[in-house]
Amino acid sequence: MKEITRHDIYTKAKEWILAAGQHIREVIDEPLYIDTKSNPNDLVTHMDRNTEKYFVKKIKETYPEHLLLSEEGFGDDLDSLEGTVWIIDPIDGTMNFVHQKRNFAISIGIYHEGVGEIGLIYNVMEDVLYSAQRGQGVYKNDKKLPHLDNKLELKESIFAINSVWACENKKVNEKLIQQLIRDCRGTRSYGSAALEFAFLSEGIIDGYLTMKLAPWDYAAGIILYREVGGEVAQANGEELDLISNSTVFASNKQIFENVINDYVELKG
Amino acid sequence: MKEITRHDIYTKAKEWILAAGQHIREVIDEPLYIDTKSNPNDLVTHMDRNTEKYFVKKIKETYPEHLLLSEEGFGDDLDSLEGTVWIIDPIDGTMNFVHQKRNFAISIGIYHEGVGEIGLIYNVMEDVLYSAQRGQGVYKNDKKLPHLDNKLELKESIFAINSVWACENKKVNEKLIQQLIRDCRGTRSYGSAALEFAFLSEGIIDGYLTMKLAPWDYAAGIILYREVGGEVAQANGEELDLISNSTVFASNKQIFENVINDYVELKG
Repeated sequence: MKEITRHDIYTKAKEWILAAGQHIREVIDEPLYIDTKSNPNDLVTHMDRNTEKYFVKKIKETYPEHLLLSEEGFGDDLDSLEGTVWIIDPIDGTMNFVHQKRNFAISIGIYHEGVGEIGLIYNVMEDVLYSAQRGQGVYKNDKKLPHLDNKLELKESIFAINSVWACENKKVNEKLIQQLIRDCRGTRSYGSAALEFAFLSEGIIDGYLTMKLAPWDYAAGIILYREVGGEVAQANGEELDLISNSTVFASNKQIFENVINDYVELKG
Repeated sequence: MKEITRHDIYTKAKEWILAAGQHIREVIDEPLYIDTKSNPNDLVTHMDRNTEKYFVKKIKETYPEHLLLSEEGFGDDLDSLEGTVWIIDPIDGTMNFVHQKRNFAISIGIYHEGVGEIGLIYNVMEDVLYSAQRGQGVYKNDKKLPHLDNKLELKESIFAINSVWACENKKVNEKLIQQLIRDCRGTRSYGSAALEFAFLSEGIIDGYLTMKLAPWDYAAGIILYREVGGEVAQANGEELDLISNSTVFASNKQIFENVINDYVELKG
């Protein structure tokens, strides 16, 4: 993608994400219409749907040739990243949105022929936009984030790991995850993959491991994190495909191989 | 304690906690001198020590008869809560302070003859003060927080649990903790007990279980949480003594007995 094209798309995407966030802040105290999806804890609200529809309308009006892969199903039915594809989560961290009315984000990753060109993660209630254009670094609002400190060892690292992966489960050997939890400095869990990638990119957490994310959960996040020098892949070390659900492991380069090899043993 | 006395002490404590927080914000980007205490992950900085000394000086000057129980050891050596006792954590969440430069709090609980009279938890970087005077509810800055919704069931509850308690450990049966993690709606972990109590008091998390806190970690928090109708005790259901390290379990009244009876089995 040409830089001038990228910059034009970035400018529009930024304008729309800020407008969508402002609208959410304005109506945050109004009653929510909450449904569940795959299970009783997989929540969706009318705000997820309306926010997604807003982006679909804007994108289709402005860039009719662009495609959309998005959480609530108002986008296109894609099985590849050919062309220019917007991968959108209108509200990442819906459980936080419903229970906390904060700690959620709008996440937009824009890919051209499979290459991540633009990433935007908007922490709506704090009005903090993390943004990246390929090759130009990551910004937290107007401040450029420094490159990661890739000298940090595991014993000094803070990992974002949800406690479910330390419990007996069908995806990963929990005994090794428990050892990882003991061997790192501490763990945190914030309940939004997009924000966890934003925090990784800021260097305030140093690793993130999870056994199930959809492409819209990490499409923007991996663009940001790679831009500051972080590593990210499936938890078996293979490349993410951005089309299917996947395990995800992200960390700084210093500890990446060590954790994948010594602490992550996938089941089945 | 008379209301007029309580209000006078509250006014001073609020003034000092805001001033201490403002100072921390001003110097947050200066180099930190970091030591470790009981283990390599038990961090302390010159800012913990200087902030505690500031409170000791102010309190001893203004209320020479008051006593202090505080994390870094510049207070008094207490084995009871006789008289008026300030229980202070100058920086709760020191690991967050060091690694994240946010998500930490100053915590002050003030007790008179063992009764919690005043609680203050200051989320320093967000400039949000949670405060309570006995019988007068909890305020988040100037906004009074509502009484808890005590109808929430476990399956709809978000628990703050650090993942270490789902791992094999010497304190608690991890199998039951794993079942609790599966049976609640979701878990979070923020790395500051004081903030976790503040979030409980706001109703944005519904339960908090941990196997080791010092009195300064929870002295303010339990005053706030009880003011909005929350239950808190040791994890075996016994009263907290505010002098020794302890397990702590806090939740809304609806699920308190259920969790203590069915999910918490202490070892040894």
